[in-house]
Amino acid sequence: MSEKKLILREDYKKFYPLSTRWMDNDMFGHINNVIYYSFFDTAVTHFLIESDCLKLNNNPMVFYVVHTSCNFITSLSYPEEIEAGVMLKKIGNTSITYGVSVFKKGAISAAAYGEFIHVLVDRDSNKSIPIPENIRQTIQSLMKN
Amino acid sequence: MSEKKLILREDYKKFYPLSTRWMDNDMFGHINNVIYYSFFDTAVTHFLIESDCLKLNNNPMVFYVVHTSCNFITSLSYPEEIEAGVMLKKIGNTSITYGVSVFKKGAISAAAYGEFIHVLVDRDSNKSIPIPENIRQTIQSLMKN
Amino acid sequence: MSEKKLILREDYKKFYPLSTRWMDNDMFGHINNVIYYSFFDTAVTHFLIESDCLKLNNNPMVFYVVHTSCNFITSLSYPEEIEAGVMLKKIGNTSITYGVSVFKKGAISAAAYGEFIHVLVDRDSNKSIPIPENIRQTIQSLMKN
Amino acid sequence: MSEKKLILREDYKKFYPLSTRWMDNDMFGHINNVIYYSFFDTAVTHFLIESDCLKLNNNPMVFYVVHTSCNFITSLSYPEEIEAGVMLKKIGNTSITYGVSVFKKGAISAAAYGEFIHVLVDRDSNKSIPIPENIRQTIQSLMKN
Repeated sequence: MSEKKLILREDYKKFYPLSTRWMDNDMFGHINNVIYYSFFDTAVTHFLIESDCLKLNNNPMVFYVVHTSCNFITSLSYPEEIEAGVMLKKIGNTSITYGVSVFKKGAISAAAYGEFIHVLVDRDSNKSIPIPENIRQTIQSLMKN
Repeated sequence: MSEKKLILREDYKKFYPLSTRWMDNDMFGHINNVIYYSFFDTAVTHFLIESDCLKLNNNPMVFYVVHTSCNFITSLSYPEEIEAGVMLKKIGNTSITYGVSVFKKGAISAAAYGEFIHVLVDRDSNKSIPIPENIRQTIQSLMKN
Repeated sequence: MSEKKLILREDYKKFYPLSTRWMDNDMFGHINNVIYYSFFDTAVTHFLIESDCLKLNNNPMVFYVVHTSCNFITSLSYPEEIEAGVMLKKIGNTSITYGVSVFKKGAISAAAYGEFIHVLVDRDSNKSIPIPENIRQTIQSLMKN
Repeated sequence: MSEKKLILREDYKKFYPLSTRWMDNDMFGHINNVIYYSFFDTAVTHFLIESDCLKLNNNPMVFYVVHTSCNFITSLSYPEEIEAGVMLKKIGNTSITYGVSVFKKGAISAAAYGEFIHVLVDRDSNKSIPIPENIRQTIQSLMKN
């Protein structure tokens, strides 16, 4: 992996506080690896909804997830509170690469970090389409200088 | 059902704020019925952990869930924040019946309510055992007068 | 509970084989109580889809879950294979009460059983509506004599 | 990504049939991206359990997941049946890199594929340890020539 390690709080632009659930813990008492992706998914989608980039009902355009990855550094356990961090790595013509992370609440260094890539798709044709300018500008606000 | 309808905020003793996740929403845009039970499960377990009634590691006694139920009143949707309410309905020799509920954050009336019944079990014998007096007293603090 | 105990394989009309997932196991090595409801939910919905009673896209009518319950008898664990059993308990003007259950694959007696109640709802008005005759007849095939 | 695209059935050594669940479908009618990781997780763990490489209870060694990734090619939907494919990409001194995939049942080409990396850890010290020779040999049977 040549992926840049974005593990510090200062590497991220937006944070979403999230709660853990008892059933997130696996047999070894740690939050199961799968659940981290639900934190990523929830945080990116929350950003898109709150910034009016995604309308859930009757929207002719949707974002499809085409790639995700996660590097697990330290384990977390229910009932810990966590924060999911989001930033923009790259925005192309039709795709958006987010840097995503999970922090134990208040921690400086991430428990896990990864990538989350969306492609904008026309629901009727099921084909990728260029990201409209207003959405592009909104998403660029997630860029870290 | 002869079960008493406990749908008001004042019917509950403890509240646990919980976040919803994007994947909780089903195809009709509502939090799937299954997820409500994870709110109940998470709230009851949180109470037991924070009040020292449940140790997760190397504990010779565990609580087994023997019955749960839920009545769904109004739908909820991600990204709404919710609160899970808990109170004590009944405590027997080996079992505890909790009243449980889910409120949209700040709402007076529950979106869903139900029952959650635990039995205390000895891990070695896999048989129910009497609830120790200190645990009994702690749990009785969840009773509403 | 005055609910009739439907715990035998012969009490159910349809069975849906389902696989368990590693993350279904909780810290005590048993499938978490919440997951059983996803087995119920999956089985009832599968019956409705395969019998043409539920169209997922652009359907003016949907079934809302208004009540579910589960009694847990014996524990199950990943990687066990299971079967979810479904039968019809009662069909009213607008609601359907299913008996639902989970069996370890091939077992005669259920590991868990409960109720699952649907109400048919008009999506526009969000109000319950009478169950059309063709759907009613299809669902009545789930009745056990 | 320089990762080799392993998208054919013939690229994988072991296949695990898995069922989908109604709640796996998201608001757009597709299995949510998070769930694919539960397919990967379930398949790798199943292999380890059935080949005696992982004992769930009182095991002094456990596998920690340190990295996973997934590339999503075509969407899947409940109630489709799927198969999770597993093969060995690389085995180091303390870590194992699996190639993992999800196929629609019987399909020749994967709906999604990715990587899943385990590190063997001593539970007491929480530090990585060399993979014992018998486990190494068993896991090498997942190599594709």
